[in-house]
Amino acid sequence: MSWSQYGEVALEGDLVQLLGSGHKSHFIRLQHGEKFQTHRGVIQHDDFIGKAWGTRVNSHQGNPFYLLQPGIADLINNIKRSTQILYPKDIGLILITMGIGPGQTVLEAGTGSGGLTTAFAYFVGQQGHVYSYDRNPEFQKLAAANLSRFDLLDRVTLKLGDVQDGFSENNVDAIFLDVPNPYDYLNQVKATLKPGGYFGTLVPSFNQAALTLKNLKHQEFGFIEMCEVLIRYYKTNWDRLRPTDRMIAHTGFMIFARAVNEIDEEPTEDL
Amino acid sequence: MSWSQYGEVALEGDLVQLLGSGHKSHFIRLQHGEKFQTHRGVIQHDDFIGKAWGTRVNSHQGNPFYLLQPGIADLINNIKRSTQILYPKDIGLILITMGIGPGQTVLEAGTGSGGLTTAFAYFVGQQGHVYSYDRNPEFQKLAAANLSRFDLLDRVTLKLGDVQDGFSENNVDAIFLDVPNPYDYLNQVKATLKPGGYFGTLVPSFNQAALTLKNLKHQEFGFIEMCEVLIRYYKTNWDRLRPTDRMIAHTGFMIFARAVNEIDEEPTEDL
Amino acid sequence: MSWSQYGEVALEGDLVQLLGSGHKSHFIRLQHGEKFQTHRGVIQHDDFIGKAWGTRVNSHQGNPFYLLQPGIADLINNIKRSTQILYPKDIGLILITMGIGPGQTVLEAGTGSGGLTTAFAYFVGQQGHVYSYDRNPEFQKLAAANLSRFDLLDRVTLKLGDVQDGFSENNVDAIFLDVPNPYDYLNQVKATLKPGGYFGTLVPSFNQAALTLKNLKHQEFGFIEMCEVLIRYYKTNWDRLRPTDRMIAHTGFMIFARAVNEIDEEPTEDL
Amino acid sequence: MSWSQYGEVALEGDLVQLLGSGHKSHFIRLQHGEKFQTHRGVIQHDDFIGKAWGTRVNSHQGNPFYLLQPGIADLINNIKRSTQILYPKDIGLILITMGIGPGQTVLEAGTGSGGLTTAFAYFVGQQGHVYSYDRNPEFQKLAAANLSRFDLLDRVTLKLGDVQDGFSENNVDAIFLDVPNPYDYLNQVKATLKPGGYFGTLVPSFNQAALTLKNLKHQEFGFIEMCEVLIRYYKTNWDRLRPTDRMIAHTGFMIFARAVNEIDEEPTEDL
Repeated sequence: MSWSQYGEVALEGDLVQLLGSGHKSHFIRLQHGEKFQTHRGVIQHDDFIGKAWGTRVNSHQGNPFYLLQPGIADLINNIKRSTQILYPKDIGLILITMGIGPGQTVLEAGTGSGGLTTAFAYFVGQQGHVYSYDRNPEFQKLAAANLSRFDLLDRVTLKLGDVQDGFSENNVDAIFLDVPNPYDYLNQVKATLKPGGYFGTLVPSFNQAALTLKNLKHQEFGFIEMCEVLIRYYKTNWDRLRPTDRMIAHTGFMIFARAVNEIDEEPTEDL
Repeated sequence: MSWSQYGEVALEGDLVQLLGSGHKSHFIRLQHGEKFQTHRGVIQHDDFIGKAWGTRVNSHQGNPFYLLQPGIADLINNIKRSTQILYPKDIGLILITMGIGPGQTVLEAGTGSGGLTTAFAYFVGQQGHVYSYDRNPEFQKLAAANLSRFDLLDRVTLKLGDVQDGFSENNVDAIFLDVPNPYDYLNQVKATLKPGGYFGTLVPSFNQAALTLKNLKHQEFGFIEMCEVLIRYYKTNWDRLRPTDRMIAHTGFMIFARAVNEIDEEPTEDL
Repeated sequence: MSWSQYGEVALEGDLVQLLGSGHKSHFIRLQHGEKFQTHRGVIQHDDFIGKAWGTRVNSHQGNPFYLLQPGIADLINNIKRSTQILYPKDIGLILITMGIGPGQTVLEAGTGSGGLTTAFAYFVGQQGHVYSYDRNPEFQKLAAANLSRFDLLDRVTLKLGDVQDGFSENNVDAIFLDVPNPYDYLNQVKATLKPGGYFGTLVPSFNQAALTLKNLKHQEFGFIEMCEVLIRYYKTNWDRLRPTDRMIAHTGFMIFARAVNEIDEEPTEDL
Repeated sequence: MSWSQYGEVALEGDLVQLLGSGHKSHFIRLQHGEKFQTHRGVIQHDDFIGKAWGTRVNSHQGNPFYLLQPGIADLINNIKRSTQILYPKDIGLILITMGIGPGQTVLEAGTGSGGLTTAFAYFVGQQGHVYSYDRNPEFQKLAAANLSRFDLLDRVTLKLGDVQDGFSENNVDAIFLDVPNPYDYLNQVKATLKPGGYFGTLVPSFNQAALTLKNLKHQEFGFIEMCEVLIRYYKTNWDRLRPTDRMIAHTGFMIFARAVNEIDEEPTEDL
């Protein structure tokens, strides 16, 4: 079973998204006889099995839940985690900037809870592959459980190891480092990335960003870009339309580069 | 030939990205005996053919160009256009929010110059498909040329027609309207979208956004979200790290929703 | 006693700012024999009286408090309120855009809790004056108490009345409307504002903003501007410098205009 | 003559603002027999003298100009300059955060073209005073000319000197450093600032900001804040209301602190 192979109705064994009030999502795999329980009430899985997608079912407390095929952004936001995970706003830019689509071979470190791994596995498809390194076996176990739950584990090779020791793959299309000190591992990245391939990282502080930029320039990376993505949500009342009062103001600075040779980069021009 | 089937060196017939100073990109298809000409000088295609990816070649004026496999974001930014196209920052969020990945069936209107069509075609892969409507044959011709140039036309069905008349497809996974008045076509969207599927649109003004929100609520769409993405670039001098002086402050407001039944949405809560 | 007449040490009768951990401020008037009590402990007023500004005194629980002359921004943020008040980020722009400085005559409606009134009274100085209207006597009473506490009441005339009925002043330098429907009162504003004087307002939603813009153009106001101010705070750890995780994403849209005659405004050009 | 002493009509000798199409401002002092010349045409000063404020006069080419009392923000934006000057959005926050209002004694360095000096002089009023240091006599001369033109020179003492050598004033209410290396002069600031007084600075890069934060903590400054102000303008067409396409994305990071003793600051909490 895979992401694109849902039928016209929800079947036993399907991973489904139940979307309730306040845009709160739950992801369950439908099984005859099981109960879906939240603080908004209980529903039998059998109330969903055989139903058309989009169907509304009320819990015994009268709270509505909608039966949906899983959305990847909602799924990432709902992943079981023991580490900070990247936000969809950042993942979206990473995907398109680094071209992480069908058939690509992507390497990431560290795996963490597997949030970014999940996104990468979804977008590279069955013809692509993701290698993901972490030195912490607990994180690896959690990531494996998450990926397995989403039927994406067959697209991923989870590897236990320290980035310091380098990667055993080579010629990969793109490498993303989600570690506190990406600037220490650029040699290892260069050795594994295909020529012209994409490097990406996300770091929360300017001090980390400055070191990363410095080392990228020293190690023959080119076409370096640094940016951050801010997402502003709006309240959806059409007759008093306004931004939400608060927003997430910072997740991290993203730095992208391509592995080239003999680079003599001129300063980035302003947009 | 397709996106993921490049060899270890650049071959005749390959679509390649030539990346020059100031992050300026050019996309050409390599052909023996041809010349690549820019105001930064001339290079023979034969100087690139057979070369490793990442190789630097100088033009006769001494300006460097790097030989790269095409990056999807750069490619979209360089598309031949006769209309405004979406920015990668917005496309990235659209992809992840609407789950537009391998194997998905996506419908868009209007086609315009084919920028978003190109992105969708790249990300749905060979197992997915894109249907794209426009009523303007000139736009359709331009989009076809762009998609053909990128080897993506086989993943796309370009259709000539007015959104007002509805779509002949049904049960599609996601529909994106890139038209000035998406609020007028929500019936047509509902009829074609699979239950639970994703609707998305981008509009530049609040007046358009308000009308879209109003009509979405009247037509049994649920889980409506409105947001905008701001991207802030930084100058990459590590020892005087700072944002660029100016930025693109506005492209449009994105509105997403899912087609559900019997919706009685409560107001969105703040983040 | 007034804002600029503090001595070298804190004296009985002085309004002082006590600034504690986490940038939490308290404003008290020093009196022999009184106690300053917070959940961080107790300090005798006499421990502050006669002390140099900047002095640190610990509460009986050992928590530090610094003795300071009142800062106007902190004071506005700490005002006793029963209504939403404007933020310093917005007030700063209002002051400089509308030229609300020493000697100016300013009119505002509604008074609310008196936060903006306090700022205006501080900045127009003893040669200026503020007229502030509210139709709610409870708000007026609260504002009077706040202004009196800060020794600013003599610069303010609080008036009870509905904006609908117009203002009895004329030829004032600047008028600021802090009401939900400023678009309904532009005739009244025009009648009271000196020719060429400044109009300003702040509204939370786009719907209100659009109506205000529409009516301003219909009523011979010119040089209309609409903007919003976003303030981004940074964590002050110099070795891991980064923005705060969350921020206030929206307070309101500010609209400014000048009262001119025979206006035939061309569309605003982009910056 | 001073800022607040304009009559009901414009008189010879008045500094006036002429506001034309596209929100372009000109500042002239009215003199019988003189001509006001722009590329939008010519107007005789005598066409303005004796006219009511707000009056519209057309140039000989038919372009309208409105006769206004000078607005401080417009005036600062139009100052004759040979250096980068601060923007009103930043000045507004500086004024309110540092309490730079009527009667305050403020010191700044460097003077530059006198833009910030002009704002400070306007807001401290006739009872306040501004001391402004620069080591470049050319800048001082330019600033003096600007201040004189605006009738504000009597509120300012321009001093020629290097910040390194310290300031001869003491017990000033607030000090603002507009120099590239404020972190080098915090001893000099501490010696001149009154206890509890405000320090402020603006620096463009994170590297400068980090050094400033580091040194402020080492030198007994407290209540340190770092922020930046972003201003987003909107196109004022009410029926297609939207932000402008581009914005100024960066001017500088502002850092504020208060001079206190025995500080043992805890980390700033998030907002």
